[in-house]
Amino acid sequence: MTAPNPLFDDRLVDLLLESVADLPSLASWPAFADQSYDSYRLVLDAARRLARGPLFEAYRPMDQEPPRYEGGRVHAHPAMRRLYPLLVETGLLAAARPPEVGGLGLPLTLTSVASAYLMAGNLGAYGYLGLTAGAAHLLEAFGGDELRARLMAPLYEGRWTGTMALTEPQAGSSLADVATRARRGGPGGSYLIEGSKVFISGGDHDLAENIVHMVLARVEGAPPGVKGVSLFAVPRLRPEGGGLAPNDVQCTGLFHKMGWRGIASVALSFGEGGDCRGYLVGEENRGVAYMFQMMNEARLMVGFNGVATASVAYHEALAYARSRPQGRPPGARDPRSPQVPIVEHADVRRMLLRQKAIVEGGLGLLVAAARFADASAHAPDAAERERAALLLDLLTPVAKSFPAEYGFEANALAVQVHGGYGYTSEYLPEAWLRDQKLNSIHEGTTGIQGLDLLGRKVMAGGGAAFRALEAEVSGGLARARRAGVESAWCDEVARALGVAAALTAELGGRGLAGDVDGMLRHSADYLALLSVLLVAWQLVAQAGAALERGDALPPAFVEGKLRAARYWLSTELPRVELWAALCRGDDSYALMPADAF
Amino acid sequence: MTAPNPLFDDRLVDLLLESVADLPSLASWPAFADQSYDSYRLVLDAARRLARGPLFEAYRPMDQEPPRYEGGRVHAHPAMRRLYPLLVETGLLAAARPPEVGGLGLPLTLTSVASAYLMAGNLGAYGYLGLTAGAAHLLEAFGGDELRARLMAPLYEGRWTGTMALTEPQAGSSLADVATRARRGGPGGSYLIEGSKVFISGGDHDLAENIVHMVLARVEGAPPGVKGVSLFAVPRLRPEGGGLAPNDVQCTGLFHKMGWRGIASVALSFGEGGDCRGYLVGEENRGVAYMFQMMNEARLMVGFNGVATASVAYHEALAYARSRPQGRPPGARDPRSPQVPIVEHADVRRMLLRQKAIVEGGLGLLVAAARFADASAHAPDAAERERAALLLDLLTPVAKSFPAEYGFEANALAVQVHGGYGYTSEYLPEAWLRDQKLNSIHEGTTGIQGLDLLGRKVMAGGGAAFRALEAEVSGGLARARRAGVESAWCDEVARALGVAAALTAELGGRGLAGDVDGMLRHSADYLALLSVLLVAWQLVAQAGAALERGDALPPAFVEGKLRAARYWLSTELPRVELWAALCRGDDSYALMPADAF
Repeated sequence: MTAPNPLFDDRLVDLLLESVADLPSLASWPAFADQSYDSYRLVLDAARRLARGPLFEAYRPMDQEPPRYEGGRVHAHPAMRRLYPLLVETGLLAAARPPEVGGLGLPLTLTSVASAYLMAGNLGAYGYLGLTAGAAHLLEAFGGDELRARLMAPLYEGRWTGTMALTEPQAGSSLADVATRARRGGPGGSYLIEGSKVFISGGDHDLAENIVHMVLARVEGAPPGVKGVSLFAVPRLRPEGGGLAPNDVQCTGLFHKMGWRGIASVALSFGEGGDCRGYLVGEENRGVAYMFQMMNEARLMVGFNGVATASVAYHEALAYARSRPQGRPPGARDPRSPQVPIVEHADVRRMLLRQKAIVEGGLGLLVAAARFADASAHAPDAAERERAALLLDLLTPVAKSFPAEYGFEANALAVQVHGGYGYTSEYLPEAWLRDQKLNSIHEGTTGIQGLDLLGRKVMAGGGAAFRALEAEVSGGLARARRAGVESAWCDEVARALGVAAALTAELGGRGLAGDVDGMLRHSADYLALLSVLLVAWQLVAQAGAALERGDALPPAFVEGKLRAARYWLSTELPRVELWAALCRGDDSYALMPADAF
Repeated sequence: MTAPNPLFDDRLVDLLLESVADLPSLASWPAFADQSYDSYRLVLDAARRLARGPLFEAYRPMDQEPPRYEGGRVHAHPAMRRLYPLLVETGLLAAARPPEVGGLGLPLTLTSVASAYLMAGNLGAYGYLGLTAGAAHLLEAFGGDELRARLMAPLYEGRWTGTMALTEPQAGSSLADVATRARRGGPGGSYLIEGSKVFISGGDHDLAENIVHMVLARVEGAPPGVKGVSLFAVPRLRPEGGGLAPNDVQCTGLFHKMGWRGIASVALSFGEGGDCRGYLVGEENRGVAYMFQMMNEARLMVGFNGVATASVAYHEALAYARSRPQGRPPGARDPRSPQVPIVEHADVRRMLLRQKAIVEGGLGLLVAAARFADASAHAPDAAERERAALLLDLLTPVAKSFPAEYGFEANALAVQVHGGYGYTSEYLPEAWLRDQKLNSIHEGTTGIQGLDLLGRKVMAGGGAAFRALEAEVSGGLARARRAGVESAWCDEVARALGVAAALTAELGGRGLAGDVDGMLRHSADYLALLSVLLVAWQLVAQAGAALERGDALPPAFVEGKLRAARYWLSTELPRVELWAALCRGDDSYALMPADAF
C-alpha cells in the first residue's frame, strides 16, 4: 500500500506562497489587513483533504462514465451529486470576492492554489465551480443591481451554476463572426435571444436547480465584427413570479471528448420557440470587452488545470518509479542480483526531472500571475496596481499555454515511466494525458495565445509591459543571487532576457513600420521563447527561496530545487537563441504555399 | 464531400521507392532479376485500395468497440471477420519471403511500404498480419523442417496467426528476468511450458483456427539471465492426429488500452493443467538471440506504424485546414470580408509543415532501413551485405523511436489544427493520437532504444557502423548538391554530422575507458541528436530527388519538398549542438538523487 497521491508537493506550494509570492506581506495592504497567514493554511488544508479524498477517488469512475444525454437533458455522473455540495462548501466560489457579494476577500493567489488541488484531484468536478465563479464575477463587475441580485447571488452561493457561451459552429477563434441574435423589446426590458452555441462546458447537468449562460450575441442593427457583439445573461430557467420558468433554452446534444470527461461539453439552442429572454449585461456592443474578464480568468484557470494535470501525473509516476523493480544499473549486470527500482535508471530520472521542472516552473508562473492579479486589484499604490495589471495581462497567455503544451509532454512522460501499464486504463496516467490535450485548445488555442502575447501584451503601454517584466525578472535574479544561487546560472537567465528584449524591440519595430504580418509570423516561436525564459526565472527564484529557508527545509528538497533549475537552464534555456533566430527569419515556414503541402 | 484520406502522399512514396531507394536498380541483383518495377506498382495499388477503402472505413468502429473478453476467449470486432481474409489475400504475409516458403521474393522495401498503407488505414487490423509474419519468419529462420512444415506453413498462409510472447509481469524491459519454465521430456520431444505472459498483442481472437505463440522460457537448470532463455513455439491448439487439440494455453484477460484498440493485448497462462507443450526453436539458451530477429522486425514495423499514424492524421488535418473557414489574415480585419480557410494562417501552416517534415523524414528513415535490410540479405557482394547489416542495425532504434516520439507530437498537432473538434471522437485525430502513444513503449521503450543505439549499435564493428553511416550521409548530401539543393543546406547537415562523429568517438572512448555509466547517461539525448540529424539527411535527400525529377513532378510538390527540408534545417538541426553539449556534461540530471524529487 503506497501513500495516496499528494497531487502537489506541499513543500513547494508552501514555499511559493510564503516566500516567493510572500503572502504574509499582504497583511500590510488594507484589503487583507485583518487576515492572517494561519487562516490561509486552513483554506489550503481543507482543499487538500477534499482533493486527495473524495475528489480523487471519483476521478477514475467519472472518466470512465462521462455524462449521458437523455431526454434532452445531460445527466452527470452519480458521484457528482455527492461531490458538488462538497465543492460548494469549500467556499472557494466567492472566497476571493469581497464581503459585499458574500465573499471572504481572500487573496486570489491563495484561492487559486487551493483550487489547483481540487483540479488535480478531479478537474472535471472542479470545472463546475470554476465556470460558475467566472460567470458570477462577470455579473458582479458589469451587471446592474437587479441582475446581481437575481442572477449573481445564486451563482456565488452555488445554488445555480454558470457557463460561458461564446463559440458557435462558424465562430470559434473568430469572435467577430458570432451570429446569435438578440432582439430588443422582450418583456421587462429583456432581449429575445435566438441562435446556437457549441462546446459549452457545464452547459447542462442535473446538479443544481438552474444554469446561467453568459452569452455573446448581436443586437439587431449592431455593427459588424467584435464591435457589434453584446453580452447577455441567459438563464436556463428564468425567475418569474417567485419561481423559475422555462426560458426556451435547449440542450441539443453533447460532444464526446477524449478528456475532461467529468463535465459535459454541450450544444445549446436558444429561442427555438421564440421566447428565450436574455438580460443585457452592461452596455450594448461592449460584450467582447466584458467577456475578456471571464476569458482571462478562464485562461489562468486553464493554466492551473494544466499544471494540476501534469502534477498529479508526475507524482503518480514518481511513486511508481520508486516502487517498480525492473532491470539493473549498467555497471551491475549479474542477473542473480535483485532488480532495482526504475527510479535508479538514468533515463527514468531524466523523465521525472523533466516533469518536475515543467510542473514546478509552470506552477510558479501561475502563482506569479495570480499575485499580479491581487496587486492589480488591491495594491495600495495606484501606479503599482497599473504595473501589476500590465504584468498580469502579459503573463496570462504564457501561463495559459505553457502548462498545456509542456504539460502535455510531461503527461506523456508519466505514461512512459509506467511502461506498458501506462497506456492501459488499469492505471491513471493515460486519462490525465487525454485531459491535458484539451488545455491547448479551449479558452483560446496556443496559436491565439501567441498572437495575443506578441501582438498586444508585450507591446502594451508602448513597451511598458515588457519593461516591467524585465524589471521583475532582474529583481528575481538579484534575490536568487543573494540567496546563494550560482551567479553563472543567473547570468544565463539574464543573457536570455537580453535576447528576448532585443527581439521584442525588433519585432515591435516591424509592427510599427506597418509589417504586422512579418511581426506576427513567428508568434508561436516567440511564445515558446518567452515561456521557457519565464520558467527559468521561476525555477531560479524557487531555488533561491529554497536556499533562503534552507535550514527549515529537508536538504533533499533544496537539492531537488537546485537540480530542477539547473536542468531547465541546461536543456531548455539554450533554445532561446534558436527561437530568436527563427522569429527574425523572413523566409520562414509561414511562407509555405498552401498548395505545396 | 471531400476526397478520401490518401493516408500517404503517393507522389512522395513513389519518389522514395523509385529515386531515393532506387528500387528499379534492384533488378540487377540475382534475387530480384525476374521482377519489374511495374509489378511492384500493382502491389502498391492493391494495398492502397484496401487501405483507403475497407480498412479505413472500419477504423473508427474498431476503435470505439475494442475486442471483448467473454467465456475465456477474446472476440474481435465483427468487421475483422470480413477484413482478415482481405488482409491475407494481399499476399503481404510472405511476399518478401522466398518461393520455397510460399513467398514471392519481393523486396522488403516494397512490401514494407505497401504494408504502411494498411497500417495507416487501420493499424489494429494490420497488427494481426504483421505479428503473424514475424512469428513465421522466426520459424523459417531457426526452426527445423518439422516445425516449418507443421507450424510455419499455416502462418504464412494466414490460416493461423502468430504472436511474440516475451513480457511477464516482472520482466518487461528486462528479459534477463523471464521466469516462464520449460521442462524437458514432453511427448514427442516437446517441452512442458508453465508460466504467465502479459501484453501479448493478438494473443487471442476468433479470426483464425489457431494461434502460435513464440514464447521465451527458461529450461530447468539453465544459467541465469538472458543466457538461459530459450525460444519455444507454443500453439494454442496443437496438431494431433490430423486435427487440432487443446494445448493448455489460457487467455486470462485483456488490457484496456488507450490506443491500438482494434487488436487485443492479452494475458496468457501456459500449463495451468500441466499439459502445455512447447516446441524448441533452434538450440536451448539461445532464445533471446533468435528473438532479436523478430524484435528487430517488429521495431521497424512499429516505426512504420508510427509514421503511418502520423501520416493519416497529417492528411486529415491538411484537408480540414483547406476547408475550414475561420478568421482573417492579420492585414485584413474587415469583419464583413469572408473568413479564410485556416491553412491561410501562419501558425496553422507551421503546424502542418512540422507534421509534413516529421512524416516524410520518418518515412524516409524507414525506407532507408528496409532498403538496408534488402541489401543485407540479397546484395551480390558479401562486403556490401555486411555493411548493409551494420547500417540496418544502427538505423533500427532510430527508425523505431523517432516516429513514436516526434510522431506523437505530429499527432497532437493534427488534433490542434482541428480546434475543439480535434478532441472529440466525432473526428478521428484524437484516436490516432491515442494510438501513437503506444509506439514509444511496446517493442522496447524509447529509453531502451537509446541504450541500444549508443551502447551497441553505433559502436558495432569497432566503429565501422558509424563510419558506414557517415559515408551514407555524405553520399546522400553529395547527390543532393549535384541535384541543385543549396550548398549551404548540405553544409549544415555535414557540420552536424561532424558534431555527431566527434561526440560518438568521445563517448565511445569513455566506454572503452571503463566509464560505461558516463557513456550511457545521456543516451536519450544522443538518440534525439542522431534522429534529428538523420531526418535532416533524409529530407535533404528527398529534396534532391525531387529536383532531379523536377520536370516530371508538380512544381508545388517540389517546392514542398524544399520547404520541408529547409524547415527541419532551421528549426530542428540547430539543436544538435545543444544535445551534444548535454551528452558531454558530467553533472547532469541523471545524477539527480532519487530522494530529491
